[in-house]
Amino acid sequence: MKALVYHGPGKRSWEEVPRPELQAATDAIVRVDHVTICGTDLHILKGDVPEVEPGRILGHEAVGTVLTVGEAVTTVKPGDRVLVSCISACGRCRYCRAGSFGQCLGGGGWILGHLIDGTQAEQVRVPFADTSVYKLPDGVSSEAALMLADILPTGYEVGVLNGRVKPGETVAVVGSGPIGLAAIITAQFYSPGHIVAIDMASSRLEAAKAFGADIVVNNAIDDPGIRIAELTAGLGADVAIEAVGVPETFELCTRLVRPGGHVANVGVHGKPATLHLESLWIRNVTITTGLVDTYSTPDLLTMLAAGRLDAENFITHKFGLDEMPVAYDVFANAQDTGALKVALSRT
Amino acid sequence: MKALVYHGPGKRSWEEVPRPELQAATDAIVRVDHVTICGTDLHILKGDVPEVEPGRILGHEAVGTVLTVGEAVTTVKPGDRVLVSCISACGRCRYCRAGSFGQCLGGGGWILGHLIDGTQAEQVRVPFADTSVYKLPDGVSSEAALMLADILPTGYEVGVLNGRVKPGETVAVVGSGPIGLAAIITAQFYSPGHIVAIDMASSRLEAAKAFGADIVVNNAIDDPGIRIAELTAGLGADVAIEAVGVPETFELCTRLVRPGGHVANVGVHGKPATLHLESLWIRNVTITTGLVDTYSTPDLLTMLAAGRLDAENFITHKFGLDEMPVAYDVFANAQDTGALKVALSRT
Amino acid sequence: MKALVYHGPGKRSWEEVPRPELQAATDAIVRVDHVTICGTDLHILKGDVPEVEPGRILGHEAVGTVLTVGEAVTTVKPGDRVLVSCISACGRCRYCRAGSFGQCLGGGGWILGHLIDGTQAEQVRVPFADTSVYKLPDGVSSEAALMLADILPTGYEVGVLNGRVKPGETVAVVGSGPIGLAAIITAQFYSPGHIVAIDMASSRLEAAKAFGADIVVNNAIDDPGIRIAELTAGLGADVAIEAVGVPETFELCTRLVRPGGHVANVGVHGKPATLHLESLWIRNVTITTGLVDTYSTPDLLTMLAAGRLDAENFITHKFGLDEMPVAYDVFANAQDTGALKVALSRT
Amino acid sequence: MKALVYHGPGKRSWEEVPRPELQAATDAIVRVDHVTICGTDLHILKGDVPEVEPGRILGHEAVGTVLTVGEAVTTVKPGDRVLVSCISACGRCRYCRAGSFGQCLGGGGWILGHLIDGTQAEQVRVPFADTSVYKLPDGVSSEAALMLADILPTGYEVGVLNGRVKPGETVAVVGSGPIGLAAIITAQFYSPGHIVAIDMASSRLEAAKAFGADIVVNNAIDDPGIRIAELTAGLGADVAIEAVGVPETFELCTRLVRPGGHVANVGVHGKPATLHLESLWIRNVTITTGLVDTYSTPDLLTMLAAGRLDAENFITHKFGLDEMPVAYDVFANAQDTGALKVALSRT
Repeated sequence: MKALVYHGPGKRSWEEVPRPELQAATDAIVRVDHVTICGTDLHILKGDVPEVEPGRILGHEAVGTVLTVGEAVTTVKPGDRVLVSCISACGRCRYCRAGSFGQCLGGGGWILGHLIDGTQAEQVRVPFADTSVYKLPDGVSSEAALMLADILPTGYEVGVLNGRVKPGETVAVVGSGPIGLAAIITAQFYSPGHIVAIDMASSRLEAAKAFGADIVVNNAIDDPGIRIAELTAGLGADVAIEAVGVPETFELCTRLVRPGGHVANVGVHGKPATLHLESLWIRNVTITTGLVDTYSTPDLLTMLAAGRLDAENFITHKFGLDEMPVAYDVFANAQDTGALKVALSRT
Repeated sequence: MKALVYHGPGKRSWEEVPRPELQAATDAIVRVDHVTICGTDLHILKGDVPEVEPGRILGHEAVGTVLTVGEAVTTVKPGDRVLVSCISACGRCRYCRAGSFGQCLGGGGWILGHLIDGTQAEQVRVPFADTSVYKLPDGVSSEAALMLADILPTGYEVGVLNGRVKPGETVAVVGSGPIGLAAIITAQFYSPGHIVAIDMASSRLEAAKAFGADIVVNNAIDDPGIRIAELTAGLGADVAIEAVGVPETFELCTRLVRPGGHVANVGVHGKPATLHLESLWIRNVTITTGLVDTYSTPDLLTMLAAGRLDAENFITHKFGLDEMPVAYDVFANAQDTGALKVALSRT
Repeated sequence: MKALVYHGPGKRSWEEVPRPELQAATDAIVRVDHVTICGTDLHILKGDVPEVEPGRILGHEAVGTVLTVGEAVTTVKPGDRVLVSCISACGRCRYCRAGSFGQCLGGGGWILGHLIDGTQAEQVRVPFADTSVYKLPDGVSSEAALMLADILPTGYEVGVLNGRVKPGETVAVVGSGPIGLAAIITAQFYSPGHIVAIDMASSRLEAAKAFGADIVVNNAIDDPGIRIAELTAGLGADVAIEAVGVPETFELCTRLVRPGGHVANVGVHGKPATLHLESLWIRNVTITTGLVDTYSTPDLLTMLAAGRLDAENFITHKFGLDEMPVAYDVFANAQDTGALKVALSRT
Repeated sequence: MKALVYHGPGKRSWEEVPRPELQAATDAIVRVDHVTICGTDLHILKGDVPEVEPGRILGHEAVGTVLTVGEAVTTVKPGDRVLVSCISACGRCRYCRAGSFGQCLGGGGWILGHLIDGTQAEQVRVPFADTSVYKLPDGVSSEAALMLADILPTGYEVGVLNGRVKPGETVAVVGSGPIGLAAIITAQFYSPGHIVAIDMASSRLEAAKAFGADIVVNNAIDDPGIRIAELTAGLGADVAIEAVGVPETFELCTRLVRPGGHVANVGVHGKPATLHLESLWIRNVTITTGLVDTYSTPDLLTMLAAGRLDAENFITHKFGLDEMPVAYDVFANAQDTGALKVALSRT
């Protein structure tokens, strides 16, 4: 079969590889019907994720069809249409027992396209299938569901739920790339009074408006602190969500939040930030970090099935699975192409 | 009357000043029967708290007797024995309505010995008396109650409750000064499996043991991370409480905590710290800061009355009120004198 | 001035009474600009609330203008447009400190039109004004705000928040009178997947649809359990809200709820219900009751100001203040008149 | 092998049966080293649990040694000493994903000695072994651990944690049989101010004192409401835990609880109770029910290993496994024998 293989920093190829086979009684083999590319895949290609070894098939998001299952698998069967999540869960360790699947100690966590071969292929082996794939309800679009493999639960859990967004609150979202937009769209489940999107690119701020931000601030030009102070009687945002991953945006979030508020970090960081404890120690702030756990994936599927989540809006470009190389080019040049998420489908 | 007056950096005197008078219908005048000195008072004397103006009477902790009350005061009356809390609360603003009295927007918060004259005097005016003093139950020792003016609710709320200590957990407390000890003593309300006290002074670690830590680590000599890893199957502490107030100890806490754990900062910081988001972003940690809100003060009084809180153990030195200057000397030289808390009493 | 006076069971009159005067430093006198009638007022008139004494002015909901304030009142001043809440709060007792204002032990709670004279008058004395009235933001309609005096915080706190409605969940609301509709409208703040309104009157079910229920069941005709089973894979509703106040509807709620779900009782009951512990003991259900605490009133005002709460839709009939007797007749005959809430305004 | 077999109401025998065999890849066969008898087993023998069919081996609590495991089992291996829990968990369904293992929809829940053969035998087949047995740490006594199979997590989760016991609170526990004692012993993890044990048998109240109740009331003689009112300024208990299972004791709990308090039902009920909504509707009470979920079992094991849980105190009588019939007699006649829990051990 064909797959997107990493061959060390800067090198990827769409090439012929052996089909995956069942290795454990809890495995499933899934035919990939729809797959997407994540910003993390680009990080891997830069060589920033050293535990990914050359020869690895990338990708951790897919919607597909179950082909075969190990004998211990009971919740899905061949022919089922399933969501393959970015997080695999052993379902047995102390973290999985507590719903913190992303921190799985039993061989799960983020492993697909990272520690084992991933989804950017015609087929993928999914370990711990019973607790790592989700059967899709009838009437849910596969392409919409694809957005629930990573981006939507990440924005929702790590941004909105960790940030404890509540009705009427003012939420600042710093960064309007795909993850920031996922936070913006899911923050609306809790009816905040205002969602303030902050970014330095006008095009992304346009997208933020389309996804539901009622106020946008280009912080290359304007001071978001002033705008938020106007909305909050000078107090600051109830919740500030970091969706970029650089020190400056994290520090901005800690400045924008009101006493007693929440800073929810979603961004993937490569460098330390400065934490201004000399002013923050007295302000009762809560700062959270996190990899997605995907405990919310069934809830998001329910929202999708109820027609309350316009997940397909993330998909700006569509390709056939064989167009993987060009899809990578389009996604990697998002600044020019305007790509949010790309969807590659079996034809 | 006599009072301890701040006259600018490095200058204090125990001198004659006018008696306080009622200024608002919600005020009370309280005779100070017992008062203590806080590390913050020493910071003020160093000039580190610039909003404290020369001429200010210091002190924000006392137990005393109500002398007179304004006409709107209904919950205490002359003759009542009361705890004067470090936090005054207007009881009306959005923060007070939510129990976050330390963040009061209506003229309260930490004001005594800071923005208005304080408790290191023969009498003190307490604004918003109904929501800022606590009538003491019979049978509760005044000196024990004095420890509830600041140190115990601070260690409990900002350390233990913000850190969400739960039965069976491993709690690391970095710093075994009075605030760290307050966290150690109140953490036991939640029956952690282990309390690991970490400090660089053996004398303070002895105190930590006496207050209930079952494991102590001198981090001038040993690596607390190794000891905690042994206790936690390599995962790290469930809760790490910072009770020093310097960057190194805060950063230590973020290294000691397990994925999914809590770092509760209690220390008063004068400088920023480095937050290692490049490793923390993926670890689901929660970091909290806070000034005490004193929402727990009634609960702590209940524990005191039930004989379940040995608050008097903090008091290492006792003085008459007129010995204020020597009490300051003893407290300021804690390293030599071994002072934890001093109590000055009306004679 | 004129006021609606209760003269014992079945007897009310709109008659001349003395104007109220300040009695405490914390009082305010408010001119009533808009007032409404509550189902509870009808209960009082039937003689069902024996602690209401003949001679009492009824009414516990109003929007008005502050005329005078006691000297301890600091958050409102003469001329301010304010919401007079059904709950007065001393702001000092253990319940008020915890935000449970409805259970106030310091002389507050539901007192207006109950233990002291109420709002169905040209003027009303409001005790504890700082913690019992809410200054209205500019741009908020007074008539819309009137719905925040009782009905909306009641449906929201006692129904939606006690019931812990979450995104994607199925919420059953039994009873589509004003309180049920208040639960339906505010449940939408949490984006449930389905809101199932259940009632025996088609006209009320029409209202339920207009207020946001996506499914309605007339339980004089159909079994709501069957409809909810279809929506929930046979499990039952995540949340069942009782908004009638008779044993049958409460018992229906306990049958409709899924294992692990919440039953939130909002209805005012006059008789005991049967609790089927022989089936419920094993089902992990949570049942809550409550008088409104009004801790959510500021949040609801924020939602109103943000244009996210169509509160005026409750008002089906408008009158001048002097038309009080006819307004009572219209409201008391809701079955014929279709009245939800009536608004009487100063002219 | 030998096993205790149910042969219809009133009939049990300790008889020869075939050894269990692996039936699924997720099964384990465990040699029973220690087993106990539960009050529920007596109910089954009375015929009160009709889904238990004649021929069924009873028992849902054991500590044993793993003999063989199915090929999908990864967390335990032959030779491991394990706790066999009363709750089996598929680990895959929506309830298991949320930690509500007792409500498992995937074939687990309470099945041992109920829907499949149980632990009162020389060997037992345990389905879903990875999520249904717990490897015991070295240094933990097997007999102490046996008390964690059912009674301790039940009292802790369904009583103490559902009841939200907090430091300083007054907790009423109605019923001082084994389950009530389990609530009393684990309530102490949260340092309540008072634990009031209520029962009609002096011998059980003596046990309650030994397990940590500081106040006992024989409600055949005295009114517990009066004693609790004295302790709580007339308000009532913060938490009332029902540990009997008859309407009278449940109704007593709803009378004893303060406004805003929690009633946690632990008792197994066979009849409905009367819920006095005519007085409770206004009192902000929360009532919970539940089968144990065993999410707390690892925490309880930690407490046991830390020497903070005197679990062995429950065991009043010890037998060899072959003495099963006499052990049943002793346990069934607890009133005369004073039995709390019996332990039967392989010899």
